[in-house]
Amino acid sequence: MKITLAQQNYIIGDIEYNTRKIIASINGAKESGSVLVVFPELAVCGYSPLDLLEYNDFIGQCTKAIHRIKEHTKDIGVIVGAPFLSIDNPIKRLFNSAYYLYQGEVKQVIHKTLLPAYDVFNETRYFEPSQGQEIIIHQGKRIALTICEDIWQNHHHSECTHYPMDILISQQPELIINISASPFDYTQAAKRHNLLLDLCKKYHLPILYCNTVGGHTDLIFDGGSLIYHPSGKLVAQLPYFQEAIYSIDTDNLTPLYDKKEVSKTELIHDSLIYGIREYFSKLNFKKAILGLSGGVDSALVLALACKALGNENVKAILLPSAFSTEHSVNDSLDLCNRLDVSYHILPIHDTFQSALTSLQPFFNNIPFNVAEENMQARIRSLFLMALSNKHGAILLNTSNKSESAVGYGTLYGDMCGGLSVLGDLYKTEVYECCAFINRKKEIIPQNILTKEPSAELRPNQKDSDSLPPYHVLDKILFLYIEQLQGIEEIVSQGFDSSIVKRVIQLVNNNEHKRFQAPPSLRISPKALGSGRRVPIVAKYDF
Amino acid sequence: MKITLAQQNYIIGDIEYNTRKIIASINGAKESGSVLVVFPELAVCGYSPLDLLEYNDFIGQCTKAIHRIKEHTKDIGVIVGAPFLSIDNPIKRLFNSAYYLYQGEVKQVIHKTLLPAYDVFNETRYFEPSQGQEIIIHQGKRIALTICEDIWQNHHHSECTHYPMDILISQQPELIINISASPFDYTQAAKRHNLLLDLCKKYHLPILYCNTVGGHTDLIFDGGSLIYHPSGKLVAQLPYFQEAIYSIDTDNLTPLYDKKEVSKTELIHDSLIYGIREYFSKLNFKKAILGLSGGVDSALVLALACKALGNENVKAILLPSAFSTEHSVNDSLDLCNRLDVSYHILPIHDTFQSALTSLQPFFNNIPFNVAEENMQARIRSLFLMALSNKHGAILLNTSNKSESAVGYGTLYGDMCGGLSVLGDLYKTEVYECCAFINRKKEIIPQNILTKEPSAELRPNQKDSDSLPPYHVLDKILFLYIEQLQGIEEIVSQGFDSSIVKRVIQLVNNNEHKRFQAPPSLRISPKALGSGRRVPIVAKYDF
Repeated sequence: MKITLAQQNYIIGDIEYNTRKIIASINGAKESGSVLVVFPELAVCGYSPLDLLEYNDFIGQCTKAIHRIKEHTKDIGVIVGAPFLSIDNPIKRLFNSAYYLYQGEVKQVIHKTLLPAYDVFNETRYFEPSQGQEIIIHQGKRIALTICEDIWQNHHHSECTHYPMDILISQQPELIINISASPFDYTQAAKRHNLLLDLCKKYHLPILYCNTVGGHTDLIFDGGSLIYHPSGKLVAQLPYFQEAIYSIDTDNLTPLYDKKEVSKTELIHDSLIYGIREYFSKLNFKKAILGLSGGVDSALVLALACKALGNENVKAILLPSAFSTEHSVNDSLDLCNRLDVSYHILPIHDTFQSALTSLQPFFNNIPFNVAEENMQARIRSLFLMALSNKHGAILLNTSNKSESAVGYGTLYGDMCGGLSVLGDLYKTEVYECCAFINRKKEIIPQNILTKEPSAELRPNQKDSDSLPPYHVLDKILFLYIEQLQGIEEIVSQGFDSSIVKRVIQLVNNNEHKRFQAPPSLRISPKALGSGRRVPIVAKYDF
Repeated sequence: MKITLAQQNYIIGDIEYNTRKIIASINGAKESGSVLVVFPELAVCGYSPLDLLEYNDFIGQCTKAIHRIKEHTKDIGVIVGAPFLSIDNPIKRLFNSAYYLYQGEVKQVIHKTLLPAYDVFNETRYFEPSQGQEIIIHQGKRIALTICEDIWQNHHHSECTHYPMDILISQQPELIINISASPFDYTQAAKRHNLLLDLCKKYHLPILYCNTVGGHTDLIFDGGSLIYHPSGKLVAQLPYFQEAIYSIDTDNLTPLYDKKEVSKTELIHDSLIYGIREYFSKLNFKKAILGLSGGVDSALVLALACKALGNENVKAILLPSAFSTEHSVNDSLDLCNRLDVSYHILPIHDTFQSALTSLQPFFNNIPFNVAEENMQARIRSLFLMALSNKHGAILLNTSNKSESAVGYGTLYGDMCGGLSVLGDLYKTEVYECCAFINRKKEIIPQNILTKEPSAELRPNQKDSDSLPPYHVLDKILFLYIEQLQGIEEIVSQGFDSSIVKRVIQLVNNNEHKRFQAPPSLRISPKALGSGRRVPIVAKYDF
């Protein structure tokens, strides 16, 4: 049976755009001789529409779209994701569903059973789980049609005693199709491969896994749809971070022998570029600006933004203060030249002095401290936001995950921006990503990579004055944030107990800053952001 | 049977503090001759610890606390809320539970069945629902012990075919006890009364409803615990917004005849004062500052902050610009005098000019526009945050819900602050609250209440230049945000279709600003904040 997978990029809420895109692909698949075309989870409305799902008007538009799409299914089967509102029940019951459309009719609607409610997922907020499992039969072919999480038989579903596939298998399917909206993180590709391999081993069926692609603010969907031979061998993998239409005869699956492995750093690099590009294109912006400090974070953001948006669309702003070292400016200029990016130099000294003059009478002779340090960062953001507003350019934030975790940043200062590019990269990962960019040619000047990190907000300041070295800090943060370990567990792995306590206290005490941080491209399994929800006012001593 | 209700205020995550408080109240209840003392939902860890619940270390500490508490129950029964980790199951199964402790033992653990996952609630993210219902029997008394939502038999639980009370009733309970952590909104008191009245009518049992009290950042828990006679008559109501310990003989319940009704505006007024006070005391801060514009929003915040923190702890900052009218300054001074609050006047002109001078070469002769308007707001926040940092005072944000909804505010400018006081009050509710404060004496100058609202960021600017009149705007916003109505439904109620479309588009297009807004005290059933989750990058045309 010739089946087409449509790995597409939808706009959340733009049901008209999504519907037209789906219909065009149905017609394309028909022409190519396919008898079934498969679209991702919630394709009609994009994933995830979040609380838009609470509007009856919104659900009504999704339902109308399905009826428009079904008109194009006279000669071809279609599987497409959309919310389904049960009208049998007097009380609102919404499902996350896969519609099977054929011969101009809604033949069957399969509901998702395992609704993820961990990390960035909220599906139990909106949807009811399916109460039963049923295969679909398209032109005589028995298909186990599942939705995303329904094949992820993992620890998030301890309440589920019967996994959907365990029930479906008794109905003798010949093929597993899974439609997904599975967000990227750097561990996800390997996890998906292992998962599908396990399914093949268990059920000895071919699997077609159709994932969505696209950036939705912080969440990046990487595509990478997969086709597996019943033996567990990979047959095809669609590209990452781009749309793809792929047709295959499921009765003639030939295993691939050269599965390409992509490194963690390359995946992160590519996902960040895609995430930036998507954020801008979906908001209809072309131009970005950012402050260039001479440090490694802003250097990496500049390099990534140039790749994402074109160097002609990126403007670098140098904002030296009295505490900026000469190399900060020179290294930044060197970088701009290497990237062929235009820049402005805008010293903050005069405005800083003017603000200080106004404020001094109210500072009660308290000596220079964090107030003046933060003022410099905030004058920089004042300048950057003025240019952003004047020229219709989005300000890119350059904070990294290590800083954000311990609150080493100025709220309304360097924490500003429309999008945080590196907010999910530890400082050590920032260096790894720079090394990847420099792998063939020195794009980010060596000097930027070797100098000691500094915020340059007071004379001779170094990050290491207030923080443990990054290679230690990042490991502790990883154990605490990603691995959910407590102090004792972390210390037992050989870290100094007073350092661990201090780091964890910093993380816990800076939730109020992160609360007001920009959205941040998610590339890890546990980003600081919508997938990690911690109370601001709490006092947790481990 | 003499039972004590402990309506207490816990610190999220501070298990040591909470445990000591619980033990002290057990000892107090014992001395007063009670045989059972009841504490609220998740009393041991505070509500809600959110993702702290994902740390095994955290759950372990909660369990240890229960074992400490049970040592104090030799002669008195205790019902106390805490998370319960089932160790029977190899896979992590966490429950939101009520421990029944007596005779130094854990006699029984009752799990919550209906886990709320709507609005500000996330409980399906952490907890499994109970699979069965069982009463507890304390000294021969048969008690239906339920947790919060388990008695809210409402539309959020369509999947539940048997409500916990419907099952418990067959076990012949003589009394219903409910332990809650039920956040305040101005509709909640009436809803709770109706709910408990309905339960009495249905089951003819006395009800003891023990709610927690306290402010946890945006969420305010109002207490107001209730005792009902089987006839449905109110027997006792514990105070709002304060701790209370109350003992009652459940075999001798005497209905009250003078139930006090509190108006919506008084509830809002009291809750805001409590919310401010709680935020500061839990963060160990005493002092607040805020910018005083001469408008009604900052005037109200100043009046509330003085009541919450004492006028000696509040500093008003006047930040006039070239576009500020004379009455803005005079009205502000008048207000400060009436409230006996100290103030500083800090004109922003010089710093604005200095910043303009630096930026002008890069403005490409584009005339004065939103860039310069925002710069003024951002210089104000630069000054306010410098004073905040220098003096250890929290900056109070003064934006209201109408502005926040339509994005009428400057990110990193007037949108700054540690806490938004009015972020859940529509502009019309701001005026109502001012009228309440002025009910006996003119505290907020009449001139502030009668002048036309203006941001004063350009000459002769008025809010009404860009927005419909607030009495229209607020109604449209209410229908869209609180009532989840689409354009057609709203227009059908007599609103101009082009205005409705524009307002809804403004709401949808400004999610990126709200994403970076400070936490905001929640006083309505649908606040802009953690209870309303909308994608930033979405395009939803109704």
